[in-house]
Amino acid sequence: MSKGLLLLESPVYVIGRGNCVGQKEGQGPLGEFFDQVEKDEYCGEDSFEKAETKLQQAALTNARLRCHKENGDIDVIGAGDLLNQCIASAYGAAAVGAPYIGLYGACSTMALSTINAVLCLVSGLAQTVAAVTGSHFCSAERQFRYPLEYGGQRPPSAQWTVTGAGALILSSKEPSDVTIRGLQVGKVVDYGISDLNNMGAAMAPAAADTLSAFFSGSGKSPADYDAIVTGDLGHIGGNILEDIMKQNGYDISDKYNDCGKMIYSKDQDAHAGGSGCGCSASVLTGYLLPKLERGEIHNLLFMATGALMSPLSVQQKQSIPAVAHLVEFVREVS
Amino acid sequence: MSKGLLLLESPVYVIGRGNCVGQKEGQGPLGEFFDQVEKDEYCGEDSFEKAETKLQQAALTNARLRCHKENGDIDVIGAGDLLNQCIASAYGAAAVGAPYIGLYGACSTMALSTINAVLCLVSGLAQTVAAVTGSHFCSAERQFRYPLEYGGQRPPSAQWTVTGAGALILSSKEPSDVTIRGLQVGKVVDYGISDLNNMGAAMAPAAADTLSAFFSGSGKSPADYDAIVTGDLGHIGGNILEDIMKQNGYDISDKYNDCGKMIYSKDQDAHAGGSGCGCSASVLTGYLLPKLERGEIHNLLFMATGALMSPLSVQQKQSIPAVAHLVEFVREVS
Repeated sequence: MSKGLLLLESPVYVIGRGNCVGQKEGQGPLGEFFDQVEKDEYCGEDSFEKAETKLQQAALTNARLRCHKENGDIDVIGAGDLLNQCIASAYGAAAVGAPYIGLYGACSTMALSTINAVLCLVSGLAQTVAAVTGSHFCSAERQFRYPLEYGGQRPPSAQWTVTGAGALILSSKEPSDVTIRGLQVGKVVDYGISDLNNMGAAMAPAAADTLSAFFSGSGKSPADYDAIVTGDLGHIGGNILEDIMKQNGYDISDKYNDCGKMIYSKDQDAHAGGSGCGCSASVLTGYLLPKLERGEIHNLLFMATGALMSPLSVQQKQSIPAVAHLVEFVREVS
Repeated sequence: MSKGLLLLESPVYVIGRGNCVGQKEGQGPLGEFFDQVEKDEYCGEDSFEKAETKLQQAALTNARLRCHKENGDIDVIGAGDLLNQCIASAYGAAAVGAPYIGLYGACSTMALSTINAVLCLVSGLAQTVAAVTGSHFCSAERQFRYPLEYGGQRPPSAQWTVTGAGALILSSKEPSDVTIRGLQVGKVVDYGISDLNNMGAAMAPAAADTLSAFFSGSGKSPADYDAIVTGDLGHIGGNILEDIMKQNGYDISDKYNDCGKMIYSKDQDAHAGGSGCGCSASVLTGYLLPKLERGEIHNLLFMATGALMSPLSVQQKQSIPAVAHLVEFVREVS
């Protein structure tokens, strides 16, 4: 049994999913699938950071509406984001009023918060748990790279932080067609990449480590799944993942896609693809899970990837540690 | 049953505890109780941030030595800290090599990471889980307030960030005298305090909310406990907590203490007391749990408190949201 692997004896049910994205994401190939496209990049607030809280709140509201829950029905909320001290999540959780587990997984947070929700349910801590995350292009650029006003040029390997948020509501008691049957918590993997504009390459080895650990521990293989989707390795990281998995003895090429590749079209000038917590969060809740609901696919390995560096650690010449967490979604129709 | 409350049917065992603190903490009233006092504020590194990783690693090593475990025996590590993007924890977890759950709870992280460890064990994800956190005065001052070179004056309500780290190793299988029997995940509470130099006042209402929820949900009262200790409300916040609890119908005054009050003496110029993730982490692992091990106390409500603001949110005129998480430690000797 691999460390960090949990195969559930009883399923956990995905009863609610919701999202809210920005205008660029709404104009992308998946635009029609999102619950809500917010055209104002400030979401009516006076800062990008406050807008990020609004995106998280909108995603959770859309998830709640889908399963007819009030904020008061949520037993525990687990959330995180890219902002320093995860403030978008903290202010969002304050508004919900439920006990709060703060998480930091960088762009892996949609998977990490889903795993946290599963642990809350299986342990008996809660019966209804929310998993929320999001990101905002403007707040991420100024925090991690340059303020937008600086007009810094982006190299082709750079990814575009998604403005958007996603939320899941999981239940241990209320049945639904889409369930979670397994999860793999990932290790921190550091391959020595130190270029903030090449996150895909930094994260791909972590994704390969987690996916290989899951296959090895569960006895499953790529053939057992209809879709294997990573969070936001983008075009460069995605190709590296396929290569490493082949070296590890797993050919995922005909099942594999990446949320960062899917969310923008080539003419949207997003270079190596989308990134940010909101990337995999919005694609999972808007595009992937509905495919399970409709029976177009019957199972899905969803693996969100995170680059755990900070601008400070990069200035201090440290390389970028990365992590990837995996959740196994299965359609179970009686 | 209160939301966020978990009373364990089978205990979780505290098999290892360890810590490492800085020179000022070593010179304080609890100095003799700590495993390791690091006199070099850089811990042999070239930055305070890298030193913070070293402190976490030392704390975990001391915890491992106490229960004769190797890094390879740890199934999952949960950790977090105050640095942007929690880099001290990420680099520390990379060195351990175990699956990693990144947490953000500000100064509540010792309780949050312990709760996370319990959830990992009770859910069956793991059998041996590490909970680690720490903080560093120099890195916290420059990130949250002013660089030390600026020489900013500290008001009397300011708390002193502890240089130190603490770690616990919990097991679901290996019995030990000190166990965990309950936990209460706290809500985010925002009472409108916006003064970065008065964190105790911002956090006290969250502590009162969590402690009242635990008493109400568990049917217990202050009379059932030998000690009730908060993380780092300090002198000002601690008094506010006692007052609010009285209003809520619970007199905790003869059982109550605060790690931020305990770690420095009055002549150490720490104003309102200690703070930082390392404060409650070092006091819990160095001073409180040994009292349980020796049978001087038989149970302990440990509640670490966190102020979830960032310098950016304060600049944007937002108030300081706070959270407190509670863990019930019980000495069980057959």
